[in-house]
Amino acid sequence: MPDPTLPSSHDKVLYTPGPLTTSLSVKQAMLHDAGSWHWEFNALVQSVRDRLVALAGLEARQGWEAILLQGSGTFGVEAVLASIVPPAGRVLVLANGAYGERAVLMLQHHRTPHVVYRTTEDTPPDPTELDRRLAEDPTISHVVAIHCETTTGILNPIETLGPVVRRHGRVFIVDAMSSFGAVPIDFAECGIDYLISSANKCIEGVPGFSFVLCRRADLEATQGTARSLSLDLLGQLKGFDKNGQFRYTPPTHSILAFDQALKELALEGGPAARAERYRRNHATLLAGMTRLGFKSYLPPAVQSYIITSFIFPPDPQFTFDAFYRRLSDKGHIIYPGKISQADTFRIGSIGRIFESDVRSLVAAVGEAVQEMNLKRLAP
Amino acid sequence: MPDPTLPSSHDKVLYTPGPLTTSLSVKQAMLHDAGSWHWEFNALVQSVRDRLVALAGLEARQGWEAILLQGSGTFGVEAVLASIVPPAGRVLVLANGAYGERAVLMLQHHRTPHVVYRTTEDTPPDPTELDRRLAEDPTISHVVAIHCETTTGILNPIETLGPVVRRHGRVFIVDAMSSFGAVPIDFAECGIDYLISSANKCIEGVPGFSFVLCRRADLEATQGTARSLSLDLLGQLKGFDKNGQFRYTPPTHSILAFDQALKELALEGGPAARAERYRRNHATLLAGMTRLGFKSYLPPAVQSYIITSFIFPPDPQFTFDAFYRRLSDKGHIIYPGKISQADTFRIGSIGRIFESDVRSLVAAVGEAVQEMNLKRLAP
Repeated sequence: MPDPTLPSSHDKVLYTPGPLTTSLSVKQAMLHDAGSWHWEFNALVQSVRDRLVALAGLEARQGWEAILLQGSGTFGVEAVLASIVPPAGRVLVLANGAYGERAVLMLQHHRTPHVVYRTTEDTPPDPTELDRRLAEDPTISHVVAIHCETTTGILNPIETLGPVVRRHGRVFIVDAMSSFGAVPIDFAECGIDYLISSANKCIEGVPGFSFVLCRRADLEATQGTARSLSLDLLGQLKGFDKNGQFRYTPPTHSILAFDQALKELALEGGPAARAERYRRNHATLLAGMTRLGFKSYLPPAVQSYIITSFIFPPDPQFTFDAFYRRLSDKGHIIYPGKISQADTFRIGSIGRIFESDVRSLVAAVGEAVQEMNLKRLAP
Repeated sequence: MPDPTLPSSHDKVLYTPGPLTTSLSVKQAMLHDAGSWHWEFNALVQSVRDRLVALAGLEARQGWEAILLQGSGTFGVEAVLASIVPPAGRVLVLANGAYGERAVLMLQHHRTPHVVYRTTEDTPPDPTELDRRLAEDPTISHVVAIHCETTTGILNPIETLGPVVRRHGRVFIVDAMSSFGAVPIDFAECGIDYLISSANKCIEGVPGFSFVLCRRADLEATQGTARSLSLDLLGQLKGFDKNGQFRYTPPTHSILAFDQALKELALEGGPAARAERYRRNHATLLAGMTRLGFKSYLPPAVQSYIITSFIFPPDPQFTFDAFYRRLSDKGHIIYPGKISQADTFRIGSIGRIFESDVRSLVAAVGEAVQEMNLKRLAP
């Protein structure tokens, strides 16, 4: 065990759904103070917005906008729900995890009429059932889906759900927090109207803001609907329109870091290359943990390469706290589970981590298993 | 004029109400990635919260809490208004600038009943008039005041307004965004129930979160009132109670910077020493600008040492854009005006700046005046 009084040469590695381990150069971009009113900073903000639209495979010429909003990803999702659903609207949430349930909580706070189509945490929503529900209830105006449900790591099939929503003429909102930038998303094919993601996920920036991709005309048509000032998405867009500035103090340092993160994403070869690295991280993790005897929670068909849930070893010697602390002492930070139906822990494959890091983590897990004298690892 | 192709050894200095120029060591604290679930980070968050309570001269033992919230200061103000005003409540806003008007905008968005006591931008609200209004309207449940109205730099007298609010048994909410940490605030004397400030003001951290100081019991009594999930202040406190964590992804790097900023505030000698530095910055600025021939907007009696509004020179050669750009080229970033009744620009005295910086700025202003051939500087 390393002497805790001797500082390490580097931070513990984060195998989490974010905040992530980022490159040193991304963090070094924050060694500056930028004026939030200054033209240089405003030009950077515009450039970040333009690059996000391009990264999504969209075109500003066709009316697509990237709107940055202060706060975490949750603030971005709530901004969409608090800004675009008219008083007569009704929202259908497709929920199979904590993030779907969080959207429901938001709608409860706003007193917005809503219904929930729940599936178990290891089961994606069924497009046929969605079709039936939309046909049955014409008052549903908006549908919310979570792309990669970080609760489990399940990847929900927005490419089959979205066309159903579009066929019924409803608005399709996708929380792509932990997938955007590393899981290919075809906006046209999926019929996405609003997509939300965050600075500190697959683009590998630091936390501080979320962003929403949507069509300007759609958002402009919601004028007067916003239930919050800070979370008023159209207000935020109008602020950028007016003078290139955030309406309220922006997280200047997070934006400097994000600019660098976007450059490094391009250097890596774009989202396809990043997806390939994350896919290799995930494959290395799954193979290594399976070899040790652990069992993952999800069926392989719906498992994303973003984050993986592993079932607690049934061995009576196992406690998550002791396991977590041993891995932490070895320099690896994993993530607790969030699943209601099973006891699990989670390991993320995203951030500035490589196969070699994942192999070190798996080796550390092997050591922890030995040290804790765990015999039964899978149920 | 410096060759723009040669990078400077340091960033342009920000004479703004924030984001501010911060110390290099505050920014260097962000060269780490912290796990938002990790005990080390949670201990740091708790320590930051404890130090904020102590900085305010309050005691956790007496039920005071500091609640950190993602987003800018505006998000913190809106969180208070969206969380604590019951459906039957009515809010009186004391407005003499853009930040008072912003509170009104929030209440409009929430459809919360409210009234406004407006004074002109150079006039503080009158405690006698406040007394009259509260006596006349017993339905007013909450009163909002802006301590230092950054619109002009006016310091509103919360020490005479607060006792009136308390005598009438109403809840007193103070937006102390640009004053907390450098203008002494006696919570007991002022009868403050809720105070909001932000990471990137007088504590000299970087943007990313705001914080609210309030009594736990008061906030707990508002259970069920919140109109937003992200901005649910009691929800945020309960999240910290539950496991020491932010409910949603925290701006980890901003919090690492803030921890360092709090240490540097203590090193400087605490709020009194910081106030003294800012006071000297302001005095040097005002003397220098007056010597050059500029006129400040506010009567001296109500002028804070945080930020100062100067009236546009009536010289036909003067344009703010040209003036601003010349100062920027010389390495100084000033701030545009926000006053509706007069054309002004603003210069802040806060952040990691010293008298020597302010003297450099005044010298640069003098050069700009010469270069622009301005003859008449004061109306």
